[in-house]
Amino acid sequence: MSIITLLTDFGIDDAYVGIIKGVILSVNPSAVIIDITHQIDPQDLIEAAYVIKSSYRYFPEGTVHVIVVDPGVGSDRAIVALEMMGHIFLAPDNGVLTLIMDEGRIDSIARVENSRYFLEPVSQTFHGRDIFAPVGAHISKGVDLKKLGSTLDRHDLVHLSIRKPYISEKGELVGTIVSVDRFGNCITNIDANCLEKFYKPGSEKRLEIMIGEYEIKGLSQSYDSVGLQHPLSIIGSLGYLEIALNCGSASRHFRAKKGDTIRVILSD
Amino acid sequence: MSIITLLTDFGIDDAYVGIIKGVILSVNPSAVIIDITHQIDPQDLIEAAYVIKSSYRYFPEGTVHVIVVDPGVGSDRAIVALEMMGHIFLAPDNGVLTLIMDEGRIDSIARVENSRYFLEPVSQTFHGRDIFAPVGAHISKGVDLKKLGSTLDRHDLVHLSIRKPYISEKGELVGTIVSVDRFGNCITNIDANCLEKFYKPGSEKRLEIMIGEYEIKGLSQSYDSVGLQHPLSIIGSLGYLEIALNCGSASRHFRAKKGDTIRVILSD
Amino acid sequence: MSIITLLTDFGIDDAYVGIIKGVILSVNPSAVIIDITHQIDPQDLIEAAYVIKSSYRYFPEGTVHVIVVDPGVGSDRAIVALEMMGHIFLAPDNGVLTLIMDEGRIDSIARVENSRYFLEPVSQTFHGRDIFAPVGAHISKGVDLKKLGSTLDRHDLVHLSIRKPYISEKGELVGTIVSVDRFGNCITNIDANCLEKFYKPGSEKRLEIMIGEYEIKGLSQSYDSVGLQHPLSIIGSLGYLEIALNCGSASRHFRAKKGDTIRVILSD
Repeated sequence: MSIITLLTDFGIDDAYVGIIKGVILSVNPSAVIIDITHQIDPQDLIEAAYVIKSSYRYFPEGTVHVIVVDPGVGSDRAIVALEMMGHIFLAPDNGVLTLIMDEGRIDSIARVENSRYFLEPVSQTFHGRDIFAPVGAHISKGVDLKKLGSTLDRHDLVHLSIRKPYISEKGELVGTIVSVDRFGNCITNIDANCLEKFYKPGSEKRLEIMIGEYEIKGLSQSYDSVGLQHPLSIIGSLGYLEIALNCGSASRHFRAKKGDTIRVILSD
Repeated sequence: MSIITLLTDFGIDDAYVGIIKGVILSVNPSAVIIDITHQIDPQDLIEAAYVIKSSYRYFPEGTVHVIVVDPGVGSDRAIVALEMMGHIFLAPDNGVLTLIMDEGRIDSIARVENSRYFLEPVSQTFHGRDIFAPVGAHISKGVDLKKLGSTLDRHDLVHLSIRKPYISEKGELVGTIVSVDRFGNCITNIDANCLEKFYKPGSEKRLEIMIGEYEIKGLSQSYDSVGLQHPLSIIGSLGYLEIALNCGSASRHFRAKKGDTIRVILSD
Repeated sequence: MSIITLLTDFGIDDAYVGIIKGVILSVNPSAVIIDITHQIDPQDLIEAAYVIKSSYRYFPEGTVHVIVVDPGVGSDRAIVALEMMGHIFLAPDNGVLTLIMDEGRIDSIARVENSRYFLEPVSQTFHGRDIFAPVGAHISKGVDLKKLGSTLDRHDLVHLSIRKPYISEKGELVGTIVSVDRFGNCITNIDANCLEKFYKPGSEKRLEIMIGEYEIKGLSQSYDSVGLQHPLSIIGSLGYLEIALNCGSASRHFRAKKGDTIRVILSD
């Protein structure tokens, strides 16, 4: 079995994703292709970086993760294949792997150059079809990364400077909403570790979370720990602090959106 | 071959569905996973109850249907697995199986408790990933329902009181629009049997269907039995009375939406 | 391996596509089913004709392409299966195959009549489920087209008169936007051959493209050949002239939409 996941900003209205799957199956007829999502906001590398970081570990070892969020298609940006933690990641070298690279030890990185694995002629506008799909399929068939091109070091790759949570002058932990899901849950960039360093459960202080001018007291363990349509904060399933509404939409309730600031405060 | 269907309200913008599929394939690499839909209105149990009832029978026997419409995730609501008619249904015990249980004889019901089939640690917010996906995958590999937990009776399960069509004081058959599809067809809760009890084809009476103040005469056999953009009523492909427009949207034409009332009248 | 692609206007909000897949797997459990897209505008045959023409060749030979864009469902329009270029196309005889038939030599066409391959009873409203799905699955298992029904000639099939690019009295090449993709790229009906007949690269004339009152000079080779958010014209990945914005949406920038006119001008 060889699993290939797809994470793109292509949407599902056009035939692009279907075409990519056709190319994959032409190279590796027994590939099992799974959509992570195609609804990344067009060219939003940071959103894609968070999504792949939160998703990859739920797939079996040996999975090839193909990420095509690629504003630089047709320019001279490189394409890279990265092997770590038993998974292989194929992506443009535009920083979309920034968060993945912090997850563990990198076993190898290759610059994807060997056109014998491409679908020729390679267009200037759809490398998803002409490079990512066939190369991902060849990797899933066992082609060694060394055969794809020259070896790279992690420092050769583009890194995004992704805003991290920080402690403000007032001593508040300041984070950002990085995504709003379908239920209106607002997912921040404050992960469980980060929050625990700031606030030890069982301490005498109380935790308050500010979203705009609104205040949420304490950290809940489940959605139904508050009344229906009441707000709460919780460490969500992806490991990040989330603002949610029990059976409702926190995003709508607080008029909160991607990019908004969240402040975590310790009070007496 | 083992087929697993997914019916959720997760949408497709986020990575949730992709993650669920990763977990399934981690447990059962040869599972064939089919999306019924992920666009159930958030937490709309009744819509999901109708969709699974209309869909399951088109899948081969042995299919495992995983339904994750679960406003009570993290509360103490149970999760149940139900075997009937050669199919297995895995769902929260929140009433979403109410209509399925009327479809035939139930062979067995288990409360899903045995954590050896879970993805540990189980979160309080994403049982789709941590319980439904791995348990569904284990069932698809042949794990007996008895191993999942204690046996339940159908009366132990939550039933939704889903509004059924009724005869009004005026002798009209009154139903409800339970869903509007992409084409604008308005699907009611009046099924073919129910309509036939009310109106025998070939009777001397004529059938009229009222949608708001609008009247549709008679029951059509196909969309093109009326002129282009003309309204009609028909027993749709799912077995329910539908209001449609030939090559148009009945929902837009009549400004009709889910929850609206439909009246069926016999006239001379 | 047998691959079946699906191209429909069913959308993904309803269970229709899931049901079709269930029927396919009931007939051919080892079918690999790939969605090209289900987001064709309801009943837009021309859009579907372009999409299948641009997509099919990226799938392996032997693929069965099932196209259900079918405003005439339940009428007496025929259903046809067409074999050419190693691919099989199953579609309503409503012109949706008009562009495919220009792609090469047709090996055989059958009218789909033999109800032993149908899912009985056949409804009047959902032939996708009752005819297209089971017939497509039987074809993918190797059933010969001759067994489906009587043989047809290409002239027996409905042809759409799809507006082609033309040379105006002023000597301009006039085309139409046939689709706008998720990125806002405006894809015209002017293909590379057609453009090359009008304008030889290296000629002394210069190429100008008019979209409404806006003018784009020259033809680019890649998106990044102009500045960020600047417009360009390019032969896109599907082989057609596209109007695009580097890292932006040409559709939004020019307020352009499907059906709008594009003029290509030679100037000194």
